[in-house]
Amino acid sequence: MDPLALTRHPERGSHERAEIAAVLDAAPLCHVAFVDAGLPFAIPTMHVRVGDAVYLHASVKSRLARVMASGAEVCLTATLLDGLVLARSAYFHSVNYRSVVVLGRAFAVVDPRERRAVLDALIERLVPGRSARVRPPSPGELAATAVVGVPLERASVKRRAGPPTDAAADRVLPVWAGVVPLAHVAGTPVPDGDPGPGAPVRLPLFGADP
Amino acid sequence: MDPLALTRHPERGSHERAEIAAVLDAAPLCHVAFVDAGLPFAIPTMHVRVGDAVYLHASVKSRLARVMASGAEVCLTATLLDGLVLARSAYFHSVNYRSVVVLGRAFAVVDPRERRAVLDALIERLVPGRSARVRPPSPGELAATAVVGVPLERASVKRRAGPPTDAAADRVLPVWAGVVPLAHVAGTPVPDGDPGPGAPVRLPLFGADP
Repeated sequence: MDPLALTRHPERGSHERAEIAAVLDAAPLCHVAFVDAGLPFAIPTMHVRVGDAVYLHASVKSRLARVMASGAEVCLTATLLDGLVLARSAYFHSVNYRSVVVLGRAFAVVDPRERRAVLDALIERLVPGRSARVRPPSPGELAATAVVGVPLERASVKRRAGPPTDAAADRVLPVWAGVVPLAHVAGTPVPDGDPGPGAPVRLPLFGADP
Repeated sequence: MDPLALTRHPERGSHERAEIAAVLDAAPLCHVAFVDAGLPFAIPTMHVRVGDAVYLHASVKSRLARVMASGAEVCLTATLLDGLVLARSAYFHSVNYRSVVVLGRAFAVVDPRERRAVLDALIERLVPGRSARVRPPSPGELAATAVVGVPLERASVKRRAGPPTDAAADRVLPVWAGVVPLAHVAGTPVPDGDPGPGAPVRLPLFGADP
């Protein structure tokens, strides 16, 4: 079976590249699944999409870096939870979400300029313009950092949006039904010590605007 | 190697049962990693902890249900992203988070009363008291629903909190450093049609209060 075949709720799925990129760019983190000694693992990490690949960094001592740098098959999944769908029947309770699954053979990024570009992009995702303000990584820090990626060739997106889909007979039941919107929002930045210039002004907002 | 050994940043890790339960109870969703035909997959889903196991439901037709009901080894990871840690050096940028990893052999829940208890608990997580208000699942709906679980015997939690950990020499650099708190917050509920009684009043808040 095609592992990317959208067998369940195919109407919720897509392989459309722009939508895949949009979800990856909106999700603050992903989970990377890999097989080690025959067993599955899923590790959370931040990611950044650059062109037709998704990248992340990790300590060279981490299992995630070791497995990915060796070219293992991974599954990188990024999910945005947009709302709780409260139906009139237990069965039709659901969530509104957007989720991208990227299947692929991981690769190590070895070119020094490409590595720096990915590391900068990981910081630019958080606060645009910040990578040029902070102290760049030292040779020792770079040596301690693995930069790895997964191509976006085999990727799919699934999502659900909108109200509950109760059966017609259930719509008369005397119970509140609807959607509770959810979003990942930023609070007031907390400076560490004397605040220098470059405070984050464009605060990130992940998920649908509640 | 013990797959639960906290080799990286062991000071951030714990096997403490209460903290593991608290993170699982606070996280709105998890990702379940499994191996199918030798390849890793990570699928997002809602979960509920009941006692010393984590449960979820899925269509009996889904791959997730098929794999878990067969007793496969899975890795269930639930992550709360609490903040962006903006350091003065690129290298010390990080995130504040809490993440639980549960490794274990999945099992199918087959006892009808236990199945109903888990399905009710999944709804109670969203809005306390709701499972008694909505139409319960029909025999056909129950037959279409797989209820599966993972024991909490092999679980660990990792977390980071607090300000950036810049090197002393970097603390004089003229750049803003600190934490941008993040939380998953609920917006105003959107009723579907005429609102019946039982509107959600205790809105969920996931993550640290921003």
